[in-house]
Amino acid sequence: MTDEQAAPAGPEAVTAAILVIGDEILSGRTKDKNIGYIAEYLTAIGIDVKEVRVVGDEMDRIVEAVNALRTRYDYVFTTGGIGPTHDDITADAIAAAFGVGIGPHPEIVALMRRHYAETGLELNEARLRMARVPDGADIIENKISKAPGFRIGNVHVMAGVPTIMQAMLDAAAETLVTGRKMLSRSVEAHMGEGDVAKPLGELQDRYPDIGIGSYPYFDGKRFTTQIVLRGRDESRLDEATRAAETMLEELRISKADGGRP
Amino acid sequence: MTDEQAAPAGPEAVTAAILVIGDEILSGRTKDKNIGYIAEYLTAIGIDVKEVRVVGDEMDRIVEAVNALRTRYDYVFTTGGIGPTHDDITADAIAAAFGVGIGPHPEIVALMRRHYAETGLELNEARLRMARVPDGADIIENKISKAPGFRIGNVHVMAGVPTIMQAMLDAAAETLVTGRKMLSRSVEAHMGEGDVAKPLGELQDRYPDIGIGSYPYFDGKRFTTQIVLRGRDESRLDEATRAAETMLEELRISKADGGRP
Repeated sequence: MTDEQAAPAGPEAVTAAILVIGDEILSGRTKDKNIGYIAEYLTAIGIDVKEVRVVGDEMDRIVEAVNALRTRYDYVFTTGGIGPTHDDITADAIAAAFGVGIGPHPEIVALMRRHYAETGLELNEARLRMARVPDGADIIENKISKAPGFRIGNVHVMAGVPTIMQAMLDAAAETLVTGRKMLSRSVEAHMGEGDVAKPLGELQDRYPDIGIGSYPYFDGKRFTTQIVLRGRDESRLDEATRAAETMLEELRISKADGGRP
Repeated sequence: MTDEQAAPAGPEAVTAAILVIGDEILSGRTKDKNIGYIAEYLTAIGIDVKEVRVVGDEMDRIVEAVNALRTRYDYVFTTGGIGPTHDDITADAIAAAFGVGIGPHPEIVALMRRHYAETGLELNEARLRMARVPDGADIIENKISKAPGFRIGNVHVMAGVPTIMQAMLDAAAETLVTGRKMLSRSVEAHMGEGDVAKPLGELQDRYPDIGIGSYPYFDGKRFTTQIVLRGRDESRLDEATRAAETMLEELRISKADGGRP
């Protein structure tokens, strides 16, 4: 275990993991809206999400997950557990994971004093807990409700409330090293996944540098299939997409002729 | 690592993990709908979800996650990667995780022959891949599209398409050992999380056997707080809920009087 920030693995592929923290997600009471948002956001700016974990508000589990993920991926993004109540233990868990102390950050204290003076709300002991960050952490700005997130090493600690998390992710993104963007194309198969499986596997063999996935879904009448192609080289991706379209056209003709040749 | 099914940890608490498998979730292209559904379903029947992971369609990552989770929790539920295409590698990964072989299950082959004969669809080589399960696995019935899921040891392998997954979960649930149900109550605080944090922490200290969480949310005008109490003993839970209501009432009076005493 090291406290050094992992160097992004070159501009081709920068990797990340998401860690969602909160009993309410595990009980199903709250349906997570952050995983999909962060995954789509990071993909769009050229960072590949490789793993997601959800753990409860338990110190040991958070520490274990943070350390497993921060040593394996270029970046980690956590959501949840940074509020003012007794079950908000994320900041303490992150400090424990990095083996550092924790205390009030003077800049956050000043910012919260100003904010609460303006709004007339009481800046009590509980709210001041939100100014505590692990030693050495930088602030991730919160334009919505002021109490910020923080970044330590390659770990970005954000709120669980989606609107606040999204504002923090915007702020955090400014400092991220991003890779070459993963591009995607999708093609509608108009047939079942089983009908397209064999030629699709052959197409994947012809284009090993392009990730080809197939996603069955119910269109209201029957199961059909969306084919998604992903790659970083646009001309190569377009070539594979045209090959997929040709393959599907041939398949439709052969099926209309009364079966596969 | 053992292939024995973990014995549920007594009727008080039976634990589970969810493993979502699929590149499309990590890229954000598909927003997962299964985690929240399974979490709520298992909680309702007395099984506590303790961890969730999402990994891509990569053999090593699936094997590693399955083995980490199946040895730690009473049950594991996976979704995704059991279709007929080249990127559907979940069955092979589960076999590898358990160190067993994989082959066509005669009962599934017969069932699929009947189904495809009835529907007029071709039962080709790709579709027959869906009959392959790890040696020793039992079938989890699929009432929607026939190709079943399977159970090996304490691991339940289900489809990724939500309607199919839900049917499989209904079928799988019949065989599960369940614990004493976790009950929950919620109380609306009508004030910010920071205002309620200190007395709420004191309430938690008085009821260590009750899990007390607080969840801030934006009600359209301001941030307010829902307090959720969870426990297995109903009378004790009701007592803690009444104590929370009394605490909130006193807090509102003291705030109306111009501040905390």
